[in-house]
Amino acid sequence: MSFNISKTKINDRFWDNYIDKVRTKMIPYQWDVLNDHLDIIIEKERNDDYIPSEKSHAIDNFKIAAGLKEGNHYGWVFQDSDVYKWLEAVAYSLQKKEDDQLRDLADSVIDLLEMAQEKDGYLNTYFSVEEPERRFKMLAESHELYCAGHYIEAAVAYYEATNNEKALSIACKLADCIDENFGNEEGKIKGYDGHEEIELALTKLYECTKNDKYLQLSRFFLYERGQDTSFFQRQRMEDNGKRDVIKGMAHRPLSYYQAHKPILEQDKAEGHAVRLVYLCTGMAEVARLTKDKEMLGACKKLWKNIVTKRMYITGGIGSTVDGEAFTADYDLPNDTMYCETCASIGLIFFAQAMLKNEPNSEYADVLERALYNSVISGMALDGKHFFYVNPLEVVPAYSEKDPGKSHVKVTRPAWFGCACCPPNLARLINSLDKYIYTQQEDTIYVHLFIENETKLQVKDESVILKQHTDYPWSGSIHFSVEADTKCSFGLGIRIPFWSSQYDVKLNGAPIEKPLIRNGYLILEKEWFGKEEISLQLDMSIKEWSANPLVRDNLGKIVVQRGPFIYCVEEEDNGSNLHLLSVSRNAPFTYSFVEEVCEGIGVIKTKGKKKCIQNKWNDSLYALYTNDQYEEKEITFIPYFAWANRSRGEMLVWIHKES
Amino acid sequence: MSFNISKTKINDRFWDNYIDKVRTKMIPYQWDVLNDHLDIIIEKERNDDYIPSEKSHAIDNFKIAAGLKEGNHYGWVFQDSDVYKWLEAVAYSLQKKEDDQLRDLADSVIDLLEMAQEKDGYLNTYFSVEEPERRFKMLAESHELYCAGHYIEAAVAYYEATNNEKALSIACKLADCIDENFGNEEGKIKGYDGHEEIELALTKLYECTKNDKYLQLSRFFLYERGQDTSFFQRQRMEDNGKRDVIKGMAHRPLSYYQAHKPILEQDKAEGHAVRLVYLCTGMAEVARLTKDKEMLGACKKLWKNIVTKRMYITGGIGSTVDGEAFTADYDLPNDTMYCETCASIGLIFFAQAMLKNEPNSEYADVLERALYNSVISGMALDGKHFFYVNPLEVVPAYSEKDPGKSHVKVTRPAWFGCACCPPNLARLINSLDKYIYTQQEDTIYVHLFIENETKLQVKDESVILKQHTDYPWSGSIHFSVEADTKCSFGLGIRIPFWSSQYDVKLNGAPIEKPLIRNGYLILEKEWFGKEEISLQLDMSIKEWSANPLVRDNLGKIVVQRGPFIYCVEEEDNGSNLHLLSVSRNAPFTYSFVEEVCEGIGVIKTKGKKKCIQNKWNDSLYALYTNDQYEEKEITFIPYFAWANRSRGEMLVWIHKES
Repeated sequence: MSFNISKTKINDRFWDNYIDKVRTKMIPYQWDVLNDHLDIIIEKERNDDYIPSEKSHAIDNFKIAAGLKEGNHYGWVFQDSDVYKWLEAVAYSLQKKEDDQLRDLADSVIDLLEMAQEKDGYLNTYFSVEEPERRFKMLAESHELYCAGHYIEAAVAYYEATNNEKALSIACKLADCIDENFGNEEGKIKGYDGHEEIELALTKLYECTKNDKYLQLSRFFLYERGQDTSFFQRQRMEDNGKRDVIKGMAHRPLSYYQAHKPILEQDKAEGHAVRLVYLCTGMAEVARLTKDKEMLGACKKLWKNIVTKRMYITGGIGSTVDGEAFTADYDLPNDTMYCETCASIGLIFFAQAMLKNEPNSEYADVLERALYNSVISGMALDGKHFFYVNPLEVVPAYSEKDPGKSHVKVTRPAWFGCACCPPNLARLINSLDKYIYTQQEDTIYVHLFIENETKLQVKDESVILKQHTDYPWSGSIHFSVEADTKCSFGLGIRIPFWSSQYDVKLNGAPIEKPLIRNGYLILEKEWFGKEEISLQLDMSIKEWSANPLVRDNLGKIVVQRGPFIYCVEEEDNGSNLHLLSVSRNAPFTYSFVEEVCEGIGVIKTKGKKKCIQNKWNDSLYALYTNDQYEEKEITFIPYFAWANRSRGEMLVWIHKES
Repeated sequence: MSFNISKTKINDRFWDNYIDKVRTKMIPYQWDVLNDHLDIIIEKERNDDYIPSEKSHAIDNFKIAAGLKEGNHYGWVFQDSDVYKWLEAVAYSLQKKEDDQLRDLADSVIDLLEMAQEKDGYLNTYFSVEEPERRFKMLAESHELYCAGHYIEAAVAYYEATNNEKALSIACKLADCIDENFGNEEGKIKGYDGHEEIELALTKLYECTKNDKYLQLSRFFLYERGQDTSFFQRQRMEDNGKRDVIKGMAHRPLSYYQAHKPILEQDKAEGHAVRLVYLCTGMAEVARLTKDKEMLGACKKLWKNIVTKRMYITGGIGSTVDGEAFTADYDLPNDTMYCETCASIGLIFFAQAMLKNEPNSEYADVLERALYNSVISGMALDGKHFFYVNPLEVVPAYSEKDPGKSHVKVTRPAWFGCACCPPNLARLINSLDKYIYTQQEDTIYVHLFIENETKLQVKDESVILKQHTDYPWSGSIHFSVEADTKCSFGLGIRIPFWSSQYDVKLNGAPIEKPLIRNGYLILEKEWFGKEEISLQLDMSIKEWSANPLVRDNLGKIVVQRGPFIYCVEEEDNGSNLHLLSVSRNAPFTYSFVEEVCEGIGVIKTKGKKKCIQNKWNDSLYALYTNDQYEEKEITFIPYFAWANRSRGEMLVWIHKES
């Protein structure tokens, strides 16, 4: 049966606000930053002398590479990728809404890239301008294929949005150049990039062009990874004497790059978190496209390790700043963690790629968890300030005075020396329509509850699927299926993990004993005319606790409503948030408050605050006596909205009266 | 009245074990290490490529500087100080027990240093061998005066122990060289060393030689500090283009060096912890010797900040590995802290210097706290393995896998790339007789309870003061005063902060309403014949809690008996120590166990262990439900003895049933 999703148009109160912000604020703002047109403070993402933070210079790097300007490359060796991710966000934006001026601007960027591209297809401003002789010779650090991957992703998106063939042709030339340089054949480099990205990008180029060469190249990079564990070291030896491409990377263990063993043997999420989830996304896509069950099995092992041992409740990943990396099972400190915005975005890519392999609500649950929490906390409501790191506990004095917490920013900076996160957010938010549904055989699966209208192609018939909802604030979701002629297909609706209770009606009648498959409520029937499904999820407030092996969360709970993890802020609760505890059987009350943070759901409950008794006057230690408490109302706001009102403490895991 | 302490001879079960170990094991072992005679693994104190850890080379550096050997300097720029501290430990050892062979060896080291010393008195193997042109030109990083200070301390001790005048003359030449190069006078450097040490050393040289020049030079360094905040930066600029003396130091803030403001204005303990307490020791000594009340006031402010806001219950200081530094008030994480052995040793120096200014048991309480806990935990019972960092909570998997915990060693290494701590321990332990008493006007104050015999000079009479005790395991301390002729003086006996209850008898009769002054029980009387005072301290087991502003210790307690802080180890209690909690009213039982760790007091109590319920099978988060516990006996051992039996978890702050 021919069955596919042809077009999804979001029309959602919650998300349109974000999508509009990306179009009207973030894209113009980021363009100005990439051109150094703004007088903003670019912050180092952590206390590290080697972080270049004077300017972006990203567009100037291309102008210099294109011969339009004199000068030197400035910024990280992967600075090009900031432009590519911006371009990809523009592509999605144009797909949603025509904008000739923006399109002209993006076309001019494509023209600039064409000029910067070398004759053989190579495209990288750092190596073209500064060190052409080191091309592909320091792959552990060089990010050449990482940048290439980001261009390919942008080009595919831009071509699909605007039909600009030049963009796609630059991408193919670049991919061809890589294909000529890498592979098993004699004379080619049997190696891979230190930062995965090309693998997932090549699957997109393959799906766009149908040229199998790109899929095979992606497969080569994946299977070659970790085979020859001396590859990076050998390249470093041969490069001997030249300066580091990135300071301090030489001492990273191979697991930092997921290059310590072949991918099929990797069963723990190790190393740099963004790299790992980008790798996994590539693996899951190649597994699907080549029907490679072994590779899919490896994806599942890594997925399981992440979500059952190494993921924050916000969907954040990466427990340490040192290498922006995973550490060990159950090691999830709340105040020194990394939880990079890009890593949660990568986790969404991985989840979606798994959903495309097989619908299982566990993937979509994590996708939703990351999206509504750790990802959108990455941007301020003004669309012009961003978190790189998304902490679960912040004390401003410690962020200021403890150099080990220099990465834990208290408010969102205007930009970063390493600016990977802001444009990554822009491209994800503006492509969110691609994450709502997947299709498997003759069933369409609903993963996200976002108001939208989607056109399905069922054989030769067009069917309209609509969601009407005030989710995430409300748990009522109304679906309608409009089919002019009778047609059969399945509709699978995710029942979120936090809503074991729910009501569902088909055309007004309760569905008795609904069929649940892999976490989805399945309606397999013949549709005709306008049919309506209404789903009521359990939006009651939940208290979650963490596995007791997570040392930092013992005796603490997290408050959740719908997909949102909540937090407490100093703004509402005063300082010393760690002294608060939620009372044993206290009721929670919920109200939507229009005037706070552009409108958010606020939760209140009864709690206690530990008193600082007189015995503590000027003393650090005292004989143990019973604690004293005062009653205190505790106010929670959704985690994503923190740090939008004032500079202060924040806490996600809060003590629970025992 | 002429009154002073002329000689103290320790004869103590607990401490003689340590003192003998230093003489028979540590000193020979450390000599072998300094000469690279041993096949041991020298560990980096933390994950940092720039730490030189192939060998010590410390003696060879001197041989090269002396022209006896060809080659280059190896090791840290302050590698010389390892030899000096070893020499100082030897001096104290010889003072206790003649050893011709050891004395010949030490004499030969003095001869070697004489050859390495330059004509003008300058002595530093790194700069003499490698970069003579940079002498005194990079003081922020160079440690030249730091090393000089350590030599001066060693020389004074060695001269006092052996009368070796060459040792003292090298020190005077070195100090004269410094005096000629530094000062307010035209043409001299108006600056100071990045690492304090010369200041306290010069007061020792002054007290030994009575040459006021050395005291004034110390005073100059102290008062100049932080006056011209551009001094280090200016030196760096003038040094422009040359390689770093120590990698990565250029970005440290001035507060790292306590050079951000004049010392009288510093009221918070900032920066590198060892530097701060060495500075404070120098300040307290100069304050005493020059009767400088303002400087003493500054010492008190810094003392108060440390002990009421920034000190671990073990007497450890330094909350972060990054800069081995203080962070912020109440920021005392247990698992990422630094608590360098040297910093606690420096805190003891500071406490003692304050006691010499004014007896106040608060200083001695901290001195004792650090000595019996954070300091002696720095060495293994075998005398050949050492901790640099003394954590309060260790999980081996996290030390291995979290690069942010690379400094938190699970067992004591044989040696370190930066080997400051092992010889610092040796010199402190072997000079412990100097820390038991101080004298103020006509009163002798007892700060430490260590069995010893001390000769007092009262006018022309000799009086013998003895302590007889099995402290720290027992709280009974018997003092005897033996005076052949009648003489009046005061005896002040510290009542430790943990013993608000105590009994005291004079010649068998209870003292009614004893006079307590500044925490000391004061006996002011005419002594004649053999008089006996017996003190019984409260050795019951105490539970301490931390100020609630210390976030990491909320709901937790620490067990203490006598001066010892106790901990729990995996060896006795199984893994997941964080799941244990001490029951509300459970009794503690104490027994001395000869066969464990060379004999230690072991404490047991009833507790509970949180169960890992079935709902946690393969899940990180679950809906909150009441916790389940199993009963569990909990076994505590003194903190100093941890990691002597097996590799495993350790915890000081343990949950208390609420």
